[in-house]
Amino acid sequence: MRKINGGVTAAKGFRAAGVRCGIKQKGPDLAAIYSEIECSVAGVFTTNAFKAASVVVNCERLALGRARAVVVNSGNANACTGERGLLDARHICKLAAGLLGVPEEQVFNASTGIIGVPLPMDKIEAGVKDAIANLSEDGGESASLAIMTTDTVPKTSAYEFEIGGATVRVGGMCKGAGMICPNMATMLCFITTDASIGSALLGKSLASNVERSFNSLTVDGDMSTNDSLILLANGASGCGEITEGSAEYAAFDKALGQVCLDLATACARDGEGATKYVEVRVINAASYADAKSAAMTIANSPLVKTAIFGEDPNWGRVLCAAGRSGAYIVPEKTSLYFGDVKIVGNGEPLRLDPEAARKPMLEHDLVITVDLCVGSESAAAFTCDFSYEYVKINAEYHT
Amino acid sequence: MRKINGGVTAAKGFRAAGVRCGIKQKGPDLAAIYSEIECSVAGVFTTNAFKAASVVVNCERLALGRARAVVVNSGNANACTGERGLLDARHICKLAAGLLGVPEEQVFNASTGIIGVPLPMDKIEAGVKDAIANLSEDGGESASLAIMTTDTVPKTSAYEFEIGGATVRVGGMCKGAGMICPNMATMLCFITTDASIGSALLGKSLASNVERSFNSLTVDGDMSTNDSLILLANGASGCGEITEGSAEYAAFDKALGQVCLDLATACARDGEGATKYVEVRVINAASYADAKSAAMTIANSPLVKTAIFGEDPNWGRVLCAAGRSGAYIVPEKTSLYFGDVKIVGNGEPLRLDPEAARKPMLEHDLVITVDLCVGSESAAAFTCDFSYEYVKINAEYHT
Repeated sequence: MRKINGGVTAAKGFRAAGVRCGIKQKGPDLAAIYSEIECSVAGVFTTNAFKAASVVVNCERLALGRARAVVVNSGNANACTGERGLLDARHICKLAAGLLGVPEEQVFNASTGIIGVPLPMDKIEAGVKDAIANLSEDGGESASLAIMTTDTVPKTSAYEFEIGGATVRVGGMCKGAGMICPNMATMLCFITTDASIGSALLGKSLASNVERSFNSLTVDGDMSTNDSLILLANGASGCGEITEGSAEYAAFDKALGQVCLDLATACARDGEGATKYVEVRVINAASYADAKSAAMTIANSPLVKTAIFGEDPNWGRVLCAAGRSGAYIVPEKTSLYFGDVKIVGNGEPLRLDPEAARKPMLEHDLVITVDLCVGSESAAAFTCDFSYEYVKINAEYHT
Repeated sequence: MRKINGGVTAAKGFRAAGVRCGIKQKGPDLAAIYSEIECSVAGVFTTNAFKAASVVVNCERLALGRARAVVVNSGNANACTGERGLLDARHICKLAAGLLGVPEEQVFNASTGIIGVPLPMDKIEAGVKDAIANLSEDGGESASLAIMTTDTVPKTSAYEFEIGGATVRVGGMCKGAGMICPNMATMLCFITTDASIGSALLGKSLASNVERSFNSLTVDGDMSTNDSLILLANGASGCGEITEGSAEYAAFDKALGQVCLDLATACARDGEGATKYVEVRVINAASYADAKSAAMTIANSPLVKTAIFGEDPNWGRVLCAAGRSGAYIVPEKTSLYFGDVKIVGNGEPLRLDPEAARKPMLEHDLVITVDLCVGSESAAAFTCDFSYEYVKINAEYHT
């Protein structure tokens, strides 16, 4: 498996574009992805009771199992916009379908930005036409720029591997920096592959990979109304049909997993106001659910995140967060590490030189490991610190 | 029922004191409460897996149902301190019991402050002697000062009411500004009453009142290792024994409820870095659990709290938080108010003058009401906004 460039156009037979249509105050804000061949499709979406219009429409279309294109806008979430929002989402798909000459129900739609404001449809119509006119095989980068909101960097990842004589590629892009704590989905993520794989098996691989990537990611504990991950597989690599339980499936599943992990950790690294990237590992838990719950509770704790911003090895806050997670914990068995430095053994602090304890906190990347020592399951959570800048960004991002 | 002064010494037969023994860098840091008469006792404590030593000791003693005194220190939590922490907590109780001439198992202990550092026992021993030597009938205020950590104001509340010819008083004090999201308890709270009421009935009244006060309070979603509420009833008012289901019980329960609510909302008002006090009311929910879950999820949302700091009527974030709470919600039925201003009706924003929507955000006290319109249950959550100062306090509060 080799890392390659290209994002959503790394895989054969996909074209994309990103254009500016004027929804945001500046920068590109509308992207399109198109496959020359009809695709299998899988997706995961927000579980929020307030689902954006695009999520409602996509869920209907996912059931049909076929896709040709996705249209995405940034700057406006088209959420809490009622009946008009649904009509707008369907209209965008219909417009793109007409221009591309593909069935309307094979076009998907996603939005991100402010909640509760109707889409500026005149701008979006012009943008859809512009984007489709500019679709290209190296458009992955411009598409990744057009889906950004408070993101400071575009996020793409792609890998290739061999199946028989064919080179198979999996590549994707995502956006997300705040209101990030997906559950069964991410903020907005689009992944394409030229593997030949049916929608059901594609969905299976996606679900397991999302659990340990996007669903293990949190910036601020706030799950969005718009979280969407859409995965298209067009078979253009010429590899044979991938079947369940095969070595080919394992290779595909691994590449998809790596793309998901790269993109999820990129969101944590670009968390709003982040000055640190943090991976919380909980090991030797009684169950995976326990490990995940403890890791996510630590990763969501404002006290842990502000301590990391202050470069303070405040291990008490980490154990305190683990202790309220509901995970089975025997305090006297618990150990804790910042980086490679063991801070707590058997539930009690080790007598450490304060400088030695603080050293890992000074790095940009921090790994916190909590060893519960009551089982053999482990999980990781991906997050960032909590800085003045997060407050500034979110106090000043006015309606 | 009349509001009175006095905190934990408002009720007859109680004495208290607060002294400085040098645990904190400045200010008083050790308090004692003493009853001239043996008391019934009830308590609720943190459900965190990492329980402070004092919580472990108090839970043992609560089972015996009798109490005479409480010793409290601030500046050190005596949590994650292993076997030594337990020995220290027991030693403090034994020392106070000897000085007061009461049974050791009737002395309770509580601590708040830094986690993972052994108590400075020489200082504490001197402090216990000093506090007990200074116990007085008007010592409630000095005690309330001695239990503060990052609190900016002391928090006391007391009420009196009549039972037959006797005047009965209920008064208390608490501390708490950060690491505040109690579950079955508060940070540190001590309430005394001169009512005559058995420990079991006292516990029943306490549990129901805590649910809608301290357990509906959040500053930052972080439940502490030390949350403790201890309630002592010494019967010194001379009122007859209060029995279940009586009018006297209803009067007592109401006064205790008001003390709990006053103290819990005082913690929210004094939340770390708070510039606003916020009450989130969820009404017409399908169940109390739904209403509580939606209210607490909104109250804990960093995006909602930073928007309030920015005085921005960002209702989308409020609905988004409600939507991920797990409560049963029909988006098209949901309405939302900031203060008295209706912002959302039937799931869609009303066309409002932006200045009218923003007006309630400019006040210090904000009530957010979400009407789910799917049932008849309601709940409130008490919180504050999320400011630069919260990050500063918690990034700089070093280990």
